[in-house]
Amino acid sequence: MAKQDRAIRTRQAILEAAAKVFEERGYQAATISEILTEAGVTKGALYFHFQSKEHLALGLLDEQDEGLTVPERPCKIQEVVDVIVLFTHRLQTSQMVRASVHLTLDQQASGLDRSGPFLAWGEMMRSLLRQAQQQGELLPHVVTDETADVLVGSYAGIQAMSHALSSYRDLGQRVTTLLRHILPSVVISSVLASVDLSTERGAYVYDEAKRNLAEAQATDELAKAAG
Amino acid sequence: MAKQDRAIRTRQAILEAAAKVFEERGYQAATISEILTEAGVTKGALYFHFQSKEHLALGLLDEQDEGLTVPERPCKIQEVVDVIVLFTHRLQTSQMVRASVHLTLDQQASGLDRSGPFLAWGEMMRSLLRQAQQQGELLPHVVTDETADVLVGSYAGIQAMSHALSSYRDLGQRVTTLLRHILPSVVISSVLASVDLSTERGAYVYDEAKRNLAEAQATDELAKAAG
Repeated sequence: MAKQDRAIRTRQAILEAAAKVFEERGYQAATISEILTEAGVTKGALYFHFQSKEHLALGLLDEQDEGLTVPERPCKIQEVVDVIVLFTHRLQTSQMVRASVHLTLDQQASGLDRSGPFLAWGEMMRSLLRQAQQQGELLPHVVTDETADVLVGSYAGIQAMSHALSSYRDLGQRVTTLLRHILPSVVISSVLASVDLSTERGAYVYDEAKRNLAEAQATDELAKAAG
Repeated sequence: MAKQDRAIRTRQAILEAAAKVFEERGYQAATISEILTEAGVTKGALYFHFQSKEHLALGLLDEQDEGLTVPERPCKIQEVVDVIVLFTHRLQTSQMVRASVHLTLDQQASGLDRSGPFLAWGEMMRSLLRQAQQQGELLPHVVTDETADVLVGSYAGIQAMSHALSSYRDLGQRVTTLLRHILPSVVISSVLASVDLSTERGAYVYDEAKRNLAEAQATDELAKAAG
């Protein structure tokens, strides 16, 4: 294993440990030494990657938009839906994504700038909705920036409710229901009729994104070996 | 002051102190002795009202539906809107309401049953939406239980986003925008056209509810004095 790969894996192990400790103890109460014990790395290794608890938290917040992406779709509203259902699937299956979302919504994590994910998600939604508007997929009165904020904000709450009431078991169903309430106020009916909002869509998009990521990595390594 | 009134005021002072400490320190990190210092009451008084930190938190969660209520409206969708904008106004102006909402959404407050407010809000919305349905205010396909959950869950997220990005300064505007995205999928157009969604509505409904509460209390005291 190259030195660089090892550093990436150590960083990943530290973030996974931080996710676990933040989830169990809360951000305010968690300590660096608990994270050290959980990660099984040296103090030096941890401080090489992250200078403080706050930097660990910001590292986790960054993980919300890690490698897995939705391929471009001809219908931009389907792409909006796919971004949302992919994230839903990851939230149900990855502790790091969960920890990152809970940090974002931890209204008691004082001193931590939690605006990053809201702004990043808002920016992604705004960009996709503007493309949808240019392609004529949206109703004429729609203000894309407002709709982007409504999607991001309401999603944040729906996931919190699903977490409190069912530990995310009903999240897929709740997200579909949310989209069925918002999209008809935004999307023209012929587009709406062709959008796939089924709860199985999340797993499908996840597998597709994993496959694409693996292929991109394989191509990268071939290029390196050839170079 | 009667003994009973004094007990009510002590209880209120303790809850206000708990709200302040939970907001500043987070639920996990907060201690009973910090709350004692803040409230300026004796240990005995505190434990008379609340047996533990968890009971204090549950007391705060109960405060989400304290005395102030929206009078019955002929249009049930206006009543739904008024319940939401009244709560929005109180969230912007009362630390106890804020603390209670943040506890509900504190995904790291382990061991605390935070489902109460979600269920109570869901129940209130379900009941109003069923009445709206009986009066013919809703579109034929609407499943009132689903719409109630969407309103409660998405509101929870919109307020979190407004808290993170503007400390609630833009909450009124964000809530109006949310309702303009959800109501057209739920309400028939003639009702929609008559519903007041303006951002000033919150302050108006708040003043009305305060007046009604004061009148009800005055009538109570007159009845007691006469009895």
